[in-house]
Amino acid sequence: MTTAVIFSLKNLPKTEKTTKMQPNATAALDYVTQNQSAFLEKIFELLRFETVGVDSTKRTEMQRCAAWLVEHFASLGLSAELLGSEEKPLVVARSQPRAGLPTVLIYGHYDVQPAEPLEPWDSPPFEPTITDGKIIARGSTDDKGQLMTHLFAAEAWLKTCGELPVNVVYLLEGQEESGSAILDAFLQEEANLEKLACDVLVVSDCSQLAPGRPAITTGLRGVNCYELTLTGAQNDLHSGSFGGAVTNPGNALSQLLGKVVDAQGRITLPHFYDDVIALTPQEREAFATITEPDDVFFRSAGVTAGNGEAGFSHLERCWARPSFDVNGLTCGYQGEGSKTVLPAVASAKFSFRLVPDQSPEKIEANLRAWLSENCPPGITFSLENQHGSPGMLTSTTSSYYQAAKAAITTGFGVAPEQIRCGGSIPIVSTLVEKLKAPALLLGWGQSDDNTHGPNEYFAIDDFLKGTLSATQLLAELEGCK
Amino acid sequence: MTTAVIFSLKNLPKTEKTTKMQPNATAALDYVTQNQSAFLEKIFELLRFETVGVDSTKRTEMQRCAAWLVEHFASLGLSAELLGSEEKPLVVARSQPRAGLPTVLIYGHYDVQPAEPLEPWDSPPFEPTITDGKIIARGSTDDKGQLMTHLFAAEAWLKTCGELPVNVVYLLEGQEESGSAILDAFLQEEANLEKLACDVLVVSDCSQLAPGRPAITTGLRGVNCYELTLTGAQNDLHSGSFGGAVTNPGNALSQLLGKVVDAQGRITLPHFYDDVIALTPQEREAFATITEPDDVFFRSAGVTAGNGEAGFSHLERCWARPSFDVNGLTCGYQGEGSKTVLPAVASAKFSFRLVPDQSPEKIEANLRAWLSENCPPGITFSLENQHGSPGMLTSTTSSYYQAAKAAITTGFGVAPEQIRCGGSIPIVSTLVEKLKAPALLLGWGQSDDNTHGPNEYFAIDDFLKGTLSATQLLAELEGCK
Repeated sequence: MTTAVIFSLKNLPKTEKTTKMQPNATAALDYVTQNQSAFLEKIFELLRFETVGVDSTKRTEMQRCAAWLVEHFASLGLSAELLGSEEKPLVVARSQPRAGLPTVLIYGHYDVQPAEPLEPWDSPPFEPTITDGKIIARGSTDDKGQLMTHLFAAEAWLKTCGELPVNVVYLLEGQEESGSAILDAFLQEEANLEKLACDVLVVSDCSQLAPGRPAITTGLRGVNCYELTLTGAQNDLHSGSFGGAVTNPGNALSQLLGKVVDAQGRITLPHFYDDVIALTPQEREAFATITEPDDVFFRSAGVTAGNGEAGFSHLERCWARPSFDVNGLTCGYQGEGSKTVLPAVASAKFSFRLVPDQSPEKIEANLRAWLSENCPPGITFSLENQHGSPGMLTSTTSSYYQAAKAAITTGFGVAPEQIRCGGSIPIVSTLVEKLKAPALLLGWGQSDDNTHGPNEYFAIDDFLKGTLSATQLLAELEGCK
Repeated sequence: MTTAVIFSLKNLPKTEKTTKMQPNATAALDYVTQNQSAFLEKIFELLRFETVGVDSTKRTEMQRCAAWLVEHFASLGLSAELLGSEEKPLVVARSQPRAGLPTVLIYGHYDVQPAEPLEPWDSPPFEPTITDGKIIARGSTDDKGQLMTHLFAAEAWLKTCGELPVNVVYLLEGQEESGSAILDAFLQEEANLEKLACDVLVVSDCSQLAPGRPAITTGLRGVNCYELTLTGAQNDLHSGSFGGAVTNPGNALSQLLGKVVDAQGRITLPHFYDDVIALTPQEREAFATITEPDDVFFRSAGVTAGNGEAGFSHLERCWARPSFDVNGLTCGYQGEGSKTVLPAVASAKFSFRLVPDQSPEKIEANLRAWLSENCPPGITFSLENQHGSPGMLTSTTSSYYQAAKAAITTGFGVAPEQIRCGGSIPIVSTLVEKLKAPALLLGWGQSDDNTHGPNEYFAIDDFLKGTLSATQLLAELEGCK
């Protein structure tokens, strides 16, 4: 997950703690506080595996890392198995099931992005170090460090109380950074879904709003990527001979793409907004309290001005409204100087960010119909749907949400803010859909933690507060159902 | 000149000869008929020079060819000199000036396009051969073969009458296929313009309408090429984080380019049509008689349908109406698969074909103003005017036009049709402007003669009729002024 929105920290709303501490939780929380050093040792062990999923020379590292995780689960008394693939196995672990308790599925991933370019790193990416109170290593925050907070939470309960307040299933994959194909396939089998059956999902693969401002991410946008190719003549045509009398695919592509968004920033495709869940007044109010002045946002983007759908703030536009973006254009002559041709072919890569409850399938059907109607004479089009995934929305009135809010208030000493994420974590949307359970997206990292970049870090303070929150969460979820 | 419009030959209008043969012309025309073989020998000599102007290894060939031309002029008793450049000299030759006679400037070029790819040639491109009544060689029609018809015309008069009916200046350049920079610079000097002073220009660097359908090209479109670059953020942005709240340069480029032409095929830029000379009823009628059914035209373009400005035929659109064409698009991710970014930069190469009296300078000023007004928030644009050249129009009621019509009727045995050309010959527009003389564009070749391609040819029948026409033309122009 690579999205990053940066906020400044003025005017923090102060909130009171709302949690009633449960007796057993105190012992578990104390355990966390007292075992930080041992936890850091364990995180370092995990970070040393060079689990770059896309690097075929690291296959053994992937397998060794998965084996390490199984062993670690076993040391806690949890049963664990490797499933789905020998090369990049899914690690599925579970506590001894106890009747009458809710089941929590904790998702994470042990694969990481490539470390390259290496030159900007201040220390070797797979030799974790601590600098300025931060764990520096590839995967420190995305996602090894964050997933481990949930293993330490279980450990704290098991070591202090001998059992967990809820049933827990861990699902750790080795392919999140490259599309989750193995897990996707795994989720096609009914028997596998039974293994993963749960009441609620917990994912820590995102971030806080800002340092000192923990947050619950209640929504993800979906995504839908296309490649559109327009073909005119068999060969490039001379613009002197044919210019003005034959449709130019480059002109046609510009006209089609240029029509998708109107002057009000609204997407013009028929039925595009039919299934969009409107922002509630409560949510708009919540977002309004965290919206920084526009210029802060624009500086973070490196642009001189924003632009988008009329009637919405930039946070609402990014988090809760769909968007259309041209991602790439390829047409005609791209070399030095000029060439006066009507190119035979013009193509575009473009994508939509979708919001709940828009369906990629309906969007595609409406897009195809619109293209058929609007494609000019003499041009044929082909449209490739590259991939699509719906958005996700978690109710803020559910007991799960309240449990997470209480847990974070305990762990961080401040109530979490209610945010959404403009990016997409397709596998989370898939898990929500397949397992029919809501997801709690609880990020302990920071949005500027160099995820995917050099010197990726996870602040030790965030790690500790995250682990405390994860520990408290298991208690808070006990009463949910 | 590379434009090509192909017509079929049904329903030829039969026209009577309107020429009164002048006594001396008979002898000159007979000389042409009797000396075909010697003429072909000379053309072959010229075609053997590998005068590929853009090939720096052919510099000596360019110089040898220019020297050959000087020698040939000298053999006819015309004074000739090499001017403007040592490497690709202008060959300027003139007859002994006689007072009271009009001066005709005959323009041509001895440089040729590269012959590559060589594999499709049936014979070596610089070893001219005759096959099926055609001279096959690079440059046979473009333009060595055609320019030689005007040298043979002078020869015919000089050998039979001892003098020419008019004063003649030849201007042969070695850089037409690569931009005429040397000649352009030459025309900046007043003293050089005096050397080239004339009453009318004659250019045979175009083609007939179709075999057996000679034509006078009365108009050329101008051209104006641009590169537009839109810049948003400093780097590509994640579409999850910023999509919908920041202007995407790829979207903006599509919107801007998509707005240039409206649903009626009209260009929407302010004042764009202000200086367009409307087609006359006479011209529309003339074009209507030569317009083939749309499907013939579309087949020649290799498209399934045409498209253009409402209210005009496809010939009118190509020949006499301005056009806007995207020539190239470059933006964002162009590799395999998808990448969900807002590209930092998007650029387009595009060009206008202009018609008389549109001025590239005015177009640029209006385009810049329009872009400033329409460029969306957060985007900066830069516009590079790559090159521009106005269109050209020759009066069909002038005595020069009538002279050319009569000459062609004599040479081809059929009256020429009145056509225009949708392409541009920038140097012709420049010569017309600088020398303040009208241009007669008289093409002896065919539009499908593989100009610039493999197996370029010049039909011997067209060569002979062209030479007869060129010979008669000198007589017809005698009375013009």
